[in-house]
Amino acid sequence: MSVTAAQGFTAAGIAAGIKAPLANGSGGNPDLALVVNTGPRTAAAGVFTSNRVKAAPVLWSEQVLKSGELTAVVLNSGGANACTGPKGFQDTHATAEKVAASLNTAGYDETGGHNAGMIAVCSTGLIGVTLPMDKLLPGVDKAVAQLSPHGGEKAAIAIKTTDSVHKTAVVTKDGWTVGGMAKGAGMLAPGLATMLVVLTTDADVPSADLDTALRAATRTTFDRVDSDGCMSTNDTVLLLASGASGVVPAAGDFAEAVRAVCDDLARQLIGDAEGASKDIRIEVVGAASEDDAVEVGRSIARNNLLKCALHGEDPNWGRVLSAIGTTSAVFEPDQLNVAINGVWVCKNGSVGEDRELVDMRYREVRITADLAAGTESAVIWANDLTADYVHENSAYAS
Amino acid sequence: MSVTAAQGFTAAGIAAGIKAPLANGSGGNPDLALVVNTGPRTAAAGVFTSNRVKAAPVLWSEQVLKSGELTAVVLNSGGANACTGPKGFQDTHATAEKVAASLNTAGYDETGGHNAGMIAVCSTGLIGVTLPMDKLLPGVDKAVAQLSPHGGEKAAIAIKTTDSVHKTAVVTKDGWTVGGMAKGAGMLAPGLATMLVVLTTDADVPSADLDTALRAATRTTFDRVDSDGCMSTNDTVLLLASGASGVVPAAGDFAEAVRAVCDDLARQLIGDAEGASKDIRIEVVGAASEDDAVEVGRSIARNNLLKCALHGEDPNWGRVLSAIGTTSAVFEPDQLNVAINGVWVCKNGSVGEDRELVDMRYREVRITADLAAGTESAVIWANDLTADYVHENSAYAS
Repeated sequence: MSVTAAQGFTAAGIAAGIKAPLANGSGGNPDLALVVNTGPRTAAAGVFTSNRVKAAPVLWSEQVLKSGELTAVVLNSGGANACTGPKGFQDTHATAEKVAASLNTAGYDETGGHNAGMIAVCSTGLIGVTLPMDKLLPGVDKAVAQLSPHGGEKAAIAIKTTDSVHKTAVVTKDGWTVGGMAKGAGMLAPGLATMLVVLTTDADVPSADLDTALRAATRTTFDRVDSDGCMSTNDTVLLLASGASGVVPAAGDFAEAVRAVCDDLARQLIGDAEGASKDIRIEVVGAASEDDAVEVGRSIARNNLLKCALHGEDPNWGRVLSAIGTTSAVFEPDQLNVAINGVWVCKNGSVGEDRELVDMRYREVRITADLAAGTESAVIWANDLTADYVHENSAYAS
Repeated sequence: MSVTAAQGFTAAGIAAGIKAPLANGSGGNPDLALVVNTGPRTAAAGVFTSNRVKAAPVLWSEQVLKSGELTAVVLNSGGANACTGPKGFQDTHATAEKVAASLNTAGYDETGGHNAGMIAVCSTGLIGVTLPMDKLLPGVDKAVAQLSPHGGEKAAIAIKTTDSVHKTAVVTKDGWTVGGMAKGAGMLAPGLATMLVVLTTDADVPSADLDTALRAATRTTFDRVDSDGCMSTNDTVLLLASGASGVVPAAGDFAEAVRAVCDDLARQLIGDAEGASKDIRIEVVGAASEDDAVEVGRSIARNNLLKCALHGEDPNWGRVLSAIGTTSAVFEPDQLNVAINGVWVCKNGSVGEDRELVDMRYREVRITADLAAGTESAVIWANDLTADYVHENSAYAS
């Protein structure tokens, strides 16, 4: 159901030729998605990568979102349009102008007509390559022609890069819905946002409240995914509200629905990460502060030796302790406890229960690190490190 | 020549049975090394891991070095004696006591006899396993019996773990020498020190000056090695001076000799890192401060996606920029320049010279990142990320 699960949205996903043609010459995979808000409201919010090297579409979309209104989002895979200089920004601007013109020409005037200043642009793919605008701009016309209130799945498919499956999620409450789509399989360690995510709702919520709900949701979902320690230049999460349900939900209910959809999509990202054979749930408990718990969780999540050990189904808690030891969190080394899949293999900083008791056969691995320093906690999701990850990121440029 | 290149030192390396016996039942690989200062001076200095989870031998050796004097160093591979609780510390203490007793019994009284409080202990191997003291303690007697002024090579061999070769270096100046040995192939991202390194000199230098020279040397050599981003619990670098040459060198000459030996050994560590196919020299120039240069260099060194790309001989400068963008260093994204093997593939934050011009065939890859923000610089050494690294760290516990 994706971005068209909520009323008041149409979407499309098509092959514009931005990605290379298939070997049989039959044209490339889908690479251009369009999501249009048909109103009556056009409130929107967004969060973006905290990487200081930001792609042109991130700079553009941050700017247009200052109005708190979006009528459409255009997304392309096949090129990140990052580190492409002034030409890259001009290309993003030209894309937004083209979307506005094409939608107006096609008569999509439910929200009073479109202009580039209310259209967000998202790009994903190789950094440092300019987009083939001679293919992208005609693709916009093709996408507009295929817009449909059932187009959400096709849009979710068109934004895939190394994703093996497309990712969508939906929560429906009392007469209103929050739905969304996500892509992302590598360079997956979001800081304030992740990869490309578009959420839509037909609830009637003003942009300031969308912003509050979205920031609260991403802080404990996408922001706590750390697949490979590498923060993208293009991370973007957008939330658009059409108001088409006519329902004004309670703020708490709405925030929880947004959080649930983000959590679902974040978990799907981890489950499809490049080359991964394990999904690792790292829960840090007994922390003096939530910041401490997140710092320790990320340090464990990014420890390559631990990631290799878990790939090899070795409950190597020594590598967990060596990772905790590099942080500035409050703890005493001789009070640390670590459980792997429920077995407390490390107690008081030393040998605990028999590591042979740990069952490592399943894809999900649960690590609990108890800092014994307080009552705060946090969960970080990560992946293991595999030869497939190395192959996928060394055999060709991506 | 190793630790016995300088006059006034004897050493030995033997198989005590700490490592598992070989498949043919003929006993294990060498796993116990002993270095003895025969004087006349016994000045010493050391630097240790900044990991807050420190192995028992690190806690012990930090303590004994407060006197600024060491008469001997005993080192074992086959077990890190880290995260082993009070028992681990007792084992370290018992090892030092055994070394003192055995040396005194054997008549090594050149420096007025040995006591445990002047004997450093170093251990390396798997974290979280107690040492087989029933094998280690008899091994000390065996090592003492084999002490020789030509034993440096054997000592260097006995401290190997996953190292494929042993590492030694020597600098001789006007009548005095600095020599040393090192081990380390994984968990190789030292913070204040690295792995196990013992340096010896026959120069007549008091411990305070040894300390100054050693800290200055490690700061720009071992501390700028970042093979796999994982900081060890056992990093130790020791420098022992016998004064046997009778020469008091100029402070600058001595510091440079210590730096040269450290630099040589650090480069050997990178060249033998687990699974690596590339040695990556990352030079950050144009930085506003040396701290900025080091922060950016480490961020590049730890980027798994870049490490994979370089393994695949892909000069993927976009991944360099995405790594720089995660730092707090002073720079403007549109002023960044990046060269790979001398080709400026990124200029002003965007596409530069043709990436096809970059010759990636050789083991050494040279990355220059110009922050265009000042005149400071730093060099960090790293390795690529390979399927062999994953295999070596997932196929068995290490």
